[in-house]
Amino acid sequence: MQCALIGIDWGTTHARAYRIGADGTVLAQREAPLGIQRLAGKVFAEALDELLGEWRRDPLPRLACGMVGSRNGWIEAPYVDTPATLAALAASLVHTAGRELAIVPGCMTRDARGVPDVMRGEETQVLGARADGDTDALYVLPGTHSKWATVERGEITAFATFMTGEMHAVLLAHSILARLADSGGELQAAEFARGVAHGLGDGALLHDVFAARTLALTGELARDGVADFLSGLLIGREVRDGLVFARRAGRAAEAVRLVGAQPLCDRYATACAHAGVASTHVDDAAPRGLWRIARAAGMLEA
Amino acid sequence: MQCALIGIDWGTTHARAYRIGADGTVLAQREAPLGIQRLAGKVFAEALDELLGEWRRDPLPRLACGMVGSRNGWIEAPYVDTPATLAALAASLVHTAGRELAIVPGCMTRDARGVPDVMRGEETQVLGARADGDTDALYVLPGTHSKWATVERGEITAFATFMTGEMHAVLLAHSILARLADSGGELQAAEFARGVAHGLGDGALLHDVFAARTLALTGELARDGVADFLSGLLIGREVRDGLVFARRAGRAAEAVRLVGAQPLCDRYATACAHAGVASTHVDDAAPRGLWRIARAAGMLEA
Repeated sequence: MQCALIGIDWGTTHARAYRIGADGTVLAQREAPLGIQRLAGKVFAEALDELLGEWRRDPLPRLACGMVGSRNGWIEAPYVDTPATLAALAASLVHTAGRELAIVPGCMTRDARGVPDVMRGEETQVLGARADGDTDALYVLPGTHSKWATVERGEITAFATFMTGEMHAVLLAHSILARLADSGGELQAAEFARGVAHGLGDGALLHDVFAARTLALTGELARDGVADFLSGLLIGREVRDGLVFARRAGRAAEAVRLVGAQPLCDRYATACAHAGVASTHVDDAAPRGLWRIARAAGMLEA
Repeated sequence: MQCALIGIDWGTTHARAYRIGADGTVLAQREAPLGIQRLAGKVFAEALDELLGEWRRDPLPRLACGMVGSRNGWIEAPYVDTPATLAALAASLVHTAGRELAIVPGCMTRDARGVPDVMRGEETQVLGARADGDTDALYVLPGTHSKWATVERGEITAFATFMTGEMHAVLLAHSILARLADSGGELQAAEFARGVAHGLGDGALLHDVFAARTLALTGELARDGVADFLSGLLIGREVRDGLVFARRAGRAAEAVRLVGAQPLCDRYATACAHAGVASTHVDDAAPRGLWRIARAAGMLEA
């Protein structure tokens, strides 16, 4: 199949480029550690050439999503407010000065108290993860800053960020738990599940994280289980509170769609199952989202 | 007044010694940065001599509390279970091999799920903070690892730890918030109060901490207000959840006793007032607690 679009998912630490056919099929992909905080003095145009390699000579439309459109990126693509449709995102693409790239804007939402939340890149993944004909769903994108997003009639209606991955990392590296935890290799499934049960409970997080210390202190948790107990605790708490977010957003969830890399999504699937919620998994949804947005923007009519 | 007891509050980073009269009055005090993790190769007996200075020659009973009695301290003083009475603590003192010191044990409790919690040093402060004739109260000891403790008929019946101070420190130093926050000098009272209101709400902590980032991103929170907003958010959340702990422990709290250094207790008093709970303040309760335990142990009958 002929390539119709070069799609780019350009984040904080990594960048991925995809050759995408007219029907959305990914034909080839490349990856480079050229996230916007790792350019090490390169200008964005150089980094793009390096990422694309021989693809850089192809006269194809190029569409990027992610932190490349943030204030610290190549050019700022202002946020589109929720409810955000595919059409609204497609109508709000921003072009770099030399027209090297079109960039998808991020999304902004406000909760009932007016507090803002933002995402950039995940809106494209959510729209890409949708199965054809699937109008309403609850999407979960696990990560450093996990996103929970409700989609109704194909629109992103609301979302919330949970700092779960970052909390796990900073507590294990820099808190009192750092001295207790041996960094294990294999997943300690039993300790993870125990953490999940704890996280799904009605405890207070500032208190519950201390349980990782006291259980280790009394010998009820092995040192090589501390990291996975804490992982389960935080993911369980995110699932508990993410389901509350969804319910408030009008979506009583019996099922969630997990979007992202398999090993982390597997942990979330386990936590969802403990909470009585089914889950399905979509691996890399960015290229399909880029293709859908490009199509809606008329970029594929070569 | 003649000195009847040398009391020592010996923690992780600091040690304080007090000359205490027969009626509990503090006659003099000394302090040194000789916490059990800062001995820098000194043995405990040397550190004690340095802390006591000329007092080391006085033939007076000596009683210490705090991390000096932990597994990494001078000698381990096993935990006393809740409900913990003054008499039980006094009956469980542990002596160093050379009888340089008697050490108060810490306390251990278990919640309804059987998860352990511990304190070491705070049990002495709680018993010292009690006003004469005051049998029942809810005590809050703010800090790196804040403690909430219920006292009934003079016994410590239950307690819970909240990692509030440590959470504030690690998030500000090591998370995405570190890049956003200017370390301010003066307390930004308005931003602190705004954080408290946020923390007392029914949000999810893993989500709410991200508000410090998004509010800064949209210009709704100044960079020099991020640290105090986060402080208010975490303290507000601790107060919200600490009151739940107290209610479950059978103590519907209309008032709390804050124990500790004034500036931090002032922040908690503000958060309690926002939550509709009155508070009173006790500054340094350790010497009175040591004196009460020494008296109960018969150490003052010279």
